[in-house]
Amino acid sequence: MEESWATLGVDLHLETGAEATRSGVRKGLTDALREAVRGGRLAPGTRLPSSRSLAVDLGIARNTVADAYADLVAEGWLTARQGSGTRVAERSVPRPAEPAPRRRAAGGPTYDLMPGTPDLSAFPRAAWLKAARRAMATAPNDALGYGDPRGRVELRTALADYLSRARGVRADPDRIVICAGFAQGLSLLGGVLRARGQREVTVESYGLDVHWDLLKRAGLRTRPLPFDELGTSTAELGAGSGSGSGSGSGFGSAKAVLLTPAHQFPMGVPLHPDRRAAAVDWARREGGLILEDDYDGEFRYDRQPVGALQGLDPDRVVYLGTASKSLAPGLRLGWMVLPEPIAAEVVEAKGGAEWACGALDQLTLAEFITSGAYDRHVRGARLRYRRRRDQLVAALAARAPEVRATGIAAGLHAVLELPPGTERTVIQAASWQRLAVQGLSSFRHPLARPAERDALVVGYGTPADHGWAGALEALCRVLP
Amino acid sequence: MEESWATLGVDLHLETGAEATRSGVRKGLTDALREAVRGGRLAPGTRLPSSRSLAVDLGIARNTVADAYADLVAEGWLTARQGSGTRVAERSVPRPAEPAPRRRAAGGPTYDLMPGTPDLSAFPRAAWLKAARRAMATAPNDALGYGDPRGRVELRTALADYLSRARGVRADPDRIVICAGFAQGLSLLGGVLRARGQREVTVESYGLDVHWDLLKRAGLRTRPLPFDELGTSTAELGAGSGSGSGSGSGFGSAKAVLLTPAHQFPMGVPLHPDRRAAAVDWARREGGLILEDDYDGEFRYDRQPVGALQGLDPDRVVYLGTASKSLAPGLRLGWMVLPEPIAAEVVEAKGGAEWACGALDQLTLAEFITSGAYDRHVRGARLRYRRRRDQLVAALAARAPEVRATGIAAGLHAVLELPPGTERTVIQAASWQRLAVQGLSSFRHPLARPAERDALVVGYGTPADHGWAGALEALCRVLP
Repeated sequence: MEESWATLGVDLHLETGAEATRSGVRKGLTDALREAVRGGRLAPGTRLPSSRSLAVDLGIARNTVADAYADLVAEGWLTARQGSGTRVAERSVPRPAEPAPRRRAAGGPTYDLMPGTPDLSAFPRAAWLKAARRAMATAPNDALGYGDPRGRVELRTALADYLSRARGVRADPDRIVICAGFAQGLSLLGGVLRARGQREVTVESYGLDVHWDLLKRAGLRTRPLPFDELGTSTAELGAGSGSGSGSGSGFGSAKAVLLTPAHQFPMGVPLHPDRRAAAVDWARREGGLILEDDYDGEFRYDRQPVGALQGLDPDRVVYLGTASKSLAPGLRLGWMVLPEPIAAEVVEAKGGAEWACGALDQLTLAEFITSGAYDRHVRGARLRYRRRRDQLVAALAARAPEVRATGIAAGLHAVLELPPGTERTVIQAASWQRLAVQGLSSFRHPLARPAERDALVVGYGTPADHGWAGALEALCRVLP
Repeated sequence: MEESWATLGVDLHLETGAEATRSGVRKGLTDALREAVRGGRLAPGTRLPSSRSLAVDLGIARNTVADAYADLVAEGWLTARQGSGTRVAERSVPRPAEPAPRRRAAGGPTYDLMPGTPDLSAFPRAAWLKAARRAMATAPNDALGYGDPRGRVELRTALADYLSRARGVRADPDRIVICAGFAQGLSLLGGVLRARGQREVTVESYGLDVHWDLLKRAGLRTRPLPFDELGTSTAELGAGSGSGSGSGSGFGSAKAVLLTPAHQFPMGVPLHPDRRAAAVDWARREGGLILEDDYDGEFRYDRQPVGALQGLDPDRVVYLGTASKSLAPGLRLGWMVLPEPIAAEVVEAKGGAEWACGALDQLTLAEFITSGAYDRHVRGARLRYRRRRDQLVAALAARAPEVRATGIAAGLHAVLELPPGTERTVIQAASWQRLAVQGLSSFRHPLARPAERDALVVGYGTPADHGWAGALEALCRVLP
């Protein structure tokens, strides 16, 4: 016997008044039945009322019920068999997908001096929107389609000009590849190097473990160069397994080195001029490749910035830049200037479109650069960060004379040398003050030769202007 | 003997008037010297004039020259040795990086009916900008920082609501991962499956070779399911190597199948209700995983859309959606709704930030969805494409009665069945008319069982409104 709808105990809240459209009623009924099956109120195997009887119960057209049943049969919730009517599908009701436990707000720090992020409150929102508006007004329709895996030509052209002007990079738009920040660029390059048969990339003694991990994921070991009083030492680049021809068909079996020549991260010194030359000589002699991480090359406060190493030999250096420090990491926009033939291999690794960045952000950044807004923003940011660095140095002199900021006046972070053996204690004291700050030891490569350097890496670029004074005060309180 | 500057024959165009700042002069001199070395006009080993003598020649301050020399020493262009003065670095001048040959404009087609792209001229530019403005006005600063690898919570929350309402997806924001379009999602999933020890993914007989290639790159073979008069057949999903427990700890050694259940691409039929049920049963029985590619689920013109397969069992189905058809591929925005524990593995594979999408686009899409602009846009697009499909069907009836559009009235493309043996000829004739259109054979999996189907896959969504009539006319001219 067919059960009546009421017996099924399913609530149906259908709008059936004059305003209700037929398709609205049908959708409402379909949704309600689906929920009833999903929630287990209609058990598997349950026979549903005939469409005629349900239509009478609900005061709606029979066809509407029949359509709703058909929808749910098509979706697999119901089955309809000749002679056996419409039933709830004979399958166990899936248990409801439980929401994953929400992460507890960890009670973030009150003062944040972690390095690696610029002052996000200073993102030029209005100027960015203005650029977005202009970009949207002028973008050809096909800019919204599947695009060149290298990225939008407008942005590559704007970057070629900017990088040449501001960083001495020798850039042809055809050899620029836009990527989702430095990390994606490094990851793609790691894949290309691995595909060339390489097993190892030389890195600096100090750096970011996320970068070493990215290379490891690509199947590459990392081996650190020593770091001495002149900074990263290039002497141990040594003789690779390369062709030794120093020219011609590329770095087939050669080694690669990842460097931060303009401003060693985090130690804060530029690569010594002799060592810049030595690195390029090594690359030519051994068929090596230099990966130049120019993460904050725009931010130098003491003098003219050192130009990019890439300018010395665009055939041996991959230049990697990013908007993460100059604008914001959330943009996920970076760029590589690549020698041939590695450009072709990176484009191949990047594939058709799967790793591409959004076209609108690319067009907006292109407009932002060509309109001069980028230069203006960088100039303003340079002043802001320079002032903070000066305040930091002055505060140290006044309040913590045993602590010295080392490295050049540049970038968004400073290394504060601590008395030997005090790094851990200071970090601990900082956490009691709810001050987030990182010790130098967390930036040391696990294979780096032992060196007793106790220091803090202070990201003075991180706080908003209104939070800076408090953060500096908190820092001074915890310094020895 | 020291050469005079004039002897070096280097042109220096320096602004040295009253307005010229010292740093401007220094930069001008540095740039000019760098270019002279780079271009070979100053040969390696050449000794430069003393800073004093050059300063006199140029009528600028001696310190300015000394600073410029120091900059270039730091960059590696010059060397400075006690007693030997300043010289051009002893290294071969790198040959200029030659621009890669520009690709010739290939003389694109006059009429474009290639499937896979929506009408890009209909992208809602003004509404998108409005959403961007609102998103920018309300975004917290930390939205611009390094973010959650799953993507912005605002977008995941908006999608959970939208997908539940529009597609019957059971979505928790915590299990949504934003990705750079479907392709990135599939690529990440491929990596996760491979890491689980899988070697193969079952696919449909018809599909996109770029998808099969993505899986191949991840180390996975693809094996096609048969396609018959009811569409893709699930009978051969068969017994996998899974645990057979049908519940519990996941799909460790099990198989996965990639399906387009709502609208088979490109054949244009929905997965038969019995086969929807069979696929889910298989996944439960064998511990399998269904990858549901819901690329155009919003575009169904004949009746209520079939809900997502994922709603039947969120623990066994990964739902993949994209903005590439509903808005534009250039946004590079897609989303996955994932069962645990695969959600955690995908997040792990996605890594910290390297594959993330731009935060501003994510926030803009979130605002676009929650404000109702997305629904409005989809409704408008549905009307436009429906009208085009109707016009295509009418034109076929009138002008090419031997050709029939198969599949349901949905999506942005139609399959036109051709008389046997005519596919190649028609494609050839189309290219003579400068009409871009694709044959069905290019969508067949290489291992699919032979089937004599001659057909065109016509992307009626591709042209702009003003180009549609001409494209349809060109199509009719080449049909038998």
